Amino acid sequence: MTEAANEIEIPESPDIETVRRLFERCSNWGRWGPDDQLGTINHIQPADIAAAAGLVRDGRVISLAIPVDETGPQTGGFGRFNPIHLMIRDGNGALTGTTVRDFYGGRDRWIRGTDDLLILPLQSGTQWDALGHIIFDGKIYNGYDASEVGSKGAMRNDIAQLRDKVVARGVLLDLPRSRGVPWLEPGERIHAADLEACADAQGVTVGRGDIVLIRTGQIAQCRDAGSWGSYAGGSAPGIALDTAPWIHDRELAGVASDTWGLEVLPNETDDVFQPLHIVLIVGMGLLMGEIFDLEALADDCAADGRYEFLLSAVPLPITGGVGSPVNPVAIK
Amino acid sequence: MTEAANEIEIPESPDIETVRRLFERCSNWGRWGPDDQLGTINHIQPADIAAAAGLVRDGRVISLAIPVDETGPQTGGFGRFNPIHLMIRDGNGALTGTTVRDFYGGRDRWIRGTDDLLILPLQSGTQWDALGHIIFDGKIYNGYDASEVGSKGAMRNDIAQLRDKVVARGVLLDLPRSRGVPWLEPGERIHAADLEACADAQGVTVGRGDIVLIRTGQIAQCRDAGSWGSYAGGSAPGIALDTAPWIHDRELAGVASDTWGLEVLPNETDDVFQPLHIVLIVGMGLLMGEIFDLEALADDCAADGRYEFLLSAVPLPITGGVGSPVNPVAIK
Amino acid sequence: MTEAANEIEIPESPDIETVRRLFERCSNWGRWGPDDQLGTINHIQPADIAAAAGLVRDGRVISLAIPVDETGPQTGGFGRFNPIHLMIRDGNGALTGTTVRDFYGGRDRWIRGTDDLLILPLQSGTQWDALGHIIFDGKIYNGYDASEVGSKGAMRNDIAQLRDKVVARGVLLDLPRSRGVPWLEPGERIHAADLEACADAQGVTVGRGDIVLIRTGQIAQCRDAGSWGSYAGGSAPGIALDTAPWIHDRELAGVASDTWGLEVLPNETDDVFQPLHIVLIVGMGLLMGEIFDLEALADDCAADGRYEFLLSAVPLPITGGVGSPVNPVAIK
Amino acid sequence: MTEAANEIEIPESPDIETVRRLFERCSNWGRWGPDDQLGTINHIQPADIAAAAGLVRDGRVISLAIPVDETGPQTGGFGRFNPIHLMIRDGNGALTGTTVRDFYGGRDRWIRGTDDLLILPLQSGTQWDALGHIIFDGKIYNGYDASEVGSKGAMRNDIAQLRDKVVARGVLLDLPRSRGVPWLEPGERIHAADLEACADAQGVTVGRGDIVLIRTGQIAQCRDAGSWGSYAGGSAPGIALDTAPWIHDRELAGVASDTWGLEVLPNETDDVFQPLHIVLIVGMGLLMGEIFDLEALADDCAADGRYEFLLSAVPLPITGGVGSPVNPVAIK
Repeated sequence: MTEAANEIEIPESPDIETVRRLFERCSNWGRWGPDDQLGTINHIQPADIAAAAGLVRDGRVISLAIPVDETGPQTGGFGRFNPIHLMIRDGNGALTGTTVRDFYGGRDRWIRGTDDLLILPLQSGTQWDALGHIIFDGKIYNGYDASEVGSKGAMRNDIAQLRDKVVARGVLLDLPRSRGVPWLEPGERIHAADLEACADAQGVTVGRGDIVLIRTGQIAQCRDAGSWGSYAGGSAPGIALDTAPWIHDRELAGVASDTWGLEVLPNETDDVFQPLHIVLIVGMGLLMGEIFDLEALADDCAADGRYEFLLSAVPLPITGGVGSPVNPVAIK
Repeated sequence: MTEAANEIEIPESPDIETVRRLFERCSNWGRWGPDDQLGTINHIQPADIAAAAGLVRDGRVISLAIPVDETGPQTGGFGRFNPIHLMIRDGNGALTGTTVRDFYGGRDRWIRGTDDLLILPLQSGTQWDALGHIIFDGKIYNGYDASEVGSKGAMRNDIAQLRDKVVARGVLLDLPRSRGVPWLEPGERIHAADLEACADAQGVTVGRGDIVLIRTGQIAQCRDAGSWGSYAGGSAPGIALDTAPWIHDRELAGVASDTWGLEVLPNETDDVFQPLHIVLIVGMGLLMGEIFDLEALADDCAADGRYEFLLSAVPLPITGGVGSPVNPVAIK
Repeated sequence: MTEAANEIEIPESPDIETVRRLFERCSNWGRWGPDDQLGTINHIQPADIAAAAGLVRDGRVISLAIPVDETGPQTGGFGRFNPIHLMIRDGNGALTGTTVRDFYGGRDRWIRGTDDLLILPLQSGTQWDALGHIIFDGKIYNGYDASEVGSKGAMRNDIAQLRDKVVARGVLLDLPRSRGVPWLEPGERIHAADLEACADAQGVTVGRGDIVLIRTGQIAQCRDAGSWGSYAGGSAPGIALDTAPWIHDRELAGVASDTWGLEVLPNETDDVFQPLHIVLIVGMGLLMGEIFDLEALADDCAADGRYEFLLSAVPLPITGGVGSPVNPVAIK
Repeated sequence: MTEAANEIEIPESPDIETVRRLFERCSNWGRWGPDDQLGTINHIQPADIAAAAGLVRDGRVISLAIPVDETGPQTGGFGRFNPIHLMIRDGNGALTGTTVRDFYGGRDRWIRGTDDLLILPLQSGTQWDALGHIIFDGKIYNGYDASEVGSKGAMRNDIAQLRDKVVARGVLLDLPRSRGVPWLEPGERIHAADLEACADAQGVTVGRGDIVLIRTGQIAQCRDAGSWGSYAGGSAPGIALDTAPWIHDRELAGVASDTWGLEVLPNETDDVFQPLHIVLIVGMGLLMGEIFDLEALADDCAADGRYEFLLSAVPLPITGGVGSPVNPVAIK
């Protein structure tokens, strides 16, 4: 399979032409028909889901989400801020009587409720990118025009397409642990061969319909430093260009990581920002997850030696959404 | 078990005293220690989860969420409105060039992204209530003071407690289908005996650690009418007071329904609004779900005759949240 | 001056061609240079402001704004909703102690504060339209490309241009009172001759640099009915096409009314929606105000017979804003 | 008048008892009746407004607001963030056609509109505090219970009370310029005698019904530094405790400054945070303004030697609001 990755020679200084070649090499446009809006999620077959459920032995549930609150990593880039949580009515009003006055029309019928509200940029925390999240040459996945993503949201390739998807076999590739380091350093590139070697070391295989979770350890590094620092958009370890054919040929259903953007930063391409977003989301139609907290899962997998599990990570069915917050759980 | 329900005689005109007796009868305060914030979710044991995974045979995933968008049922009651979805940057800006101008500092590096944002009342759609959502006599579940739910959200009993919970055996009780009607009528009371009879008719049992989904068909009725009408807060079919001991004695982990508030409306108690919210959430610590769309699941269960499944319905880990939107999936 | 209005014959069934002729007739593109972003506000000269201040005799201040709250007229059209007001911390928390716990780090230093927040569609209530609010043939006022109004807001013609503007002589034209009726009926057209006749009847003149407030009485009608009904976007009395040259030739600085959209609805043009928005905002660069509550002002003017006053109606300097809420005050 | 300030001896280390004495000394509770919700705004009489209008000679309008956008000074303290501006529909959609598709039901009637929305903490920028903004000993101004400010906002003392107020004679006291320095240093206390001396140096008097704008130059200092730094809540020049009787005896209608909180920070009282907020807002019922940008006004006043003007600074009539953004204008 490593031949596949080598089919396209990645030059020492890759550029937009390299990206275009990878795009063509890995494109799934039309593969599932001209109306497809699911992309690589199509790789998951019902039998895969049933098989993945068979991986549940102990009944442990491990969350992969960071908290949805103001302590998140956002610092304003791309207009993203950390979630804002506000109370519509709270417990104090129950104690002082204003809840009855203001919400029950002054009629006390014993009950008191509390309500709340979120203002939530959909790309602010643990999230799935919808296939409408990235545009290249005026097109989104499967060739739809970028104008399909207008002021009202994505008419095509929105996250609501996945309302009953994203239950799959999950596989953790714990890169730093397989190398005996606490985390990969910012800027460190993860090549196809690295993924392969990690899987081998862990004694696990990845294949069609799997959702692969790539741990770089950057969240551990931030915790160790006591600050998110430049986690959101700054230098980061991540996958390199030659992983695209590797992902494509294995027919993975999704890939997620514990970094802001999955890809290595600075990017390998000086002239292209986040080139794999172009290849993987626009071309391949890959479900991509970001800011997944893989620390607890990594500890668990190291403890029992099992790096595969049932992954349930269904997005909210946000009509027109180009992303969704998610609380993915690994069930073992 | 039906004796249990009968222990407390529900008078013809129940009132706050009835509620207090049921509260005492069904209370779990202290049952799992003075610091417990999970309530009936404690009924789920790891082996139950593993067993529930064993219910997955075909690999079908069925979503139980209504769309997260402005077409929801809210009309402003309790300050709740339907979710507001806004684009931070969209595909049009990619086409006209403003995305590069406004979000990439004028530097074109080939990629274009889109981002979006939700303003989302956490009780507006398919949702779990956190145990901090309801207050009675100045207390929330397990005896914490109502002031634990302040302007910053719930310091205790928030929904984030369940970040790695709510994977369980799910059981659908399809009341209308078991009676041969399309839906229960607004105001129709579902008694413990009705639940029991429905389970019997379906050939399914419910017990410790299960999450029971009670279909009334009200969403079907709204769809048939072409309008939500007074779905949010108006007259509705729902469970009656005598179901509380039934739920308690069976040690259910959670109960959800396809109505705005699970309980029958108008309530049986003239002097108490939503009396079962007091008994079940404050007293019992029950995980309660509302506005679950059970239509597709009901059709599926009718088709294969299997009313049990793996339910994965993990909330978002919203720090301090007294509820969470959720896209519950039944996996069969 | 009425000749001016007659220069362009308004056909019985006006259409886009009529609109184009009026646009050309009334255009101010280039009039104040290629970089102008102020439009007709340029008509106000410092001496006019000083003179307008001279109209203040009694020291009465009359607000022309509807309340900023959830009782406003919006029903969702164009994504507009009524303002949502939420407390960040309230007085209950001061009483129960959670304000100290949650906002002062647990340190009680005697003071307690309350804070709040608005979610506010800028076109939802009493408002000024920025010149970037309307686009025709891909252009905004003064010929800037529509792409100047991108996801980040208006780079040109935003409302912040008026941060130190919109203090002027105001003149009320109380159409219904001049005709002895409580309000004009929905669909009733106000022609240039009507405005002229009203001014004459009131004994007032309008001219260069004035901001003219046209009362139709529709808010009075809504109050009488006890409901906004279809105020937001429905049938309404309003100005007719032939008022454009009248406004242009008088060199008015702004025009506002007590309706949703100033123009008569249904529009005179079957093929063009809100044709005067095109002519007045895009072509003329006119400051246009909507949902002004003119009831108290009308009573005041009727009482003292003075229909002119100092109008202070400065918008919020919202960077990139295509509108601004405003609380205009007439000072007499 | 300086005797007045001296009546209450401010000890070297003032504390809560000093605050209580000042509170009693300066209280206006009951002064305008038990139902008063206006406080010192009552000091403004119609004749004062008319007289203030007489100060307008040249017709210059000077805005005192900072921009309403994400460049503001907030850093998250008290849950305050800088305003978030989002487009509901923009000019790009007009160019690509999605505006017609998404907002006009697919029917092209020539016009294209743009709309936008603000998420705006009311204390985030140039603002008036409502009298319900501060609580002391469980009470707000005029003795109302703090529970009057509940989850739905202030039932009493909300900012909407001032919907037709806050037009007055304004007086600028330019402390740094009167001392020949560019700005006062953080922590520098402004005493009553300093205000008096500044007024004398400027040749201006302040008295009943005036709104006094106190320039410290801190905004100039931030601009010079190129950053807001700790402007929001950090060390700041500001008025000292002995100014309370001075303000009270002069019967000022309002006081505003170019700092985050008007008062000197660190406060003179170790045990009381923002002691003058307690004395001035809760006790006196003073209209207090913060984050006023006085730079342009200061230059203007220095240029023409006139430190008095018509001040028009009407808040938005936000029902229940405990503050309001405002674009105050000085008209000279």
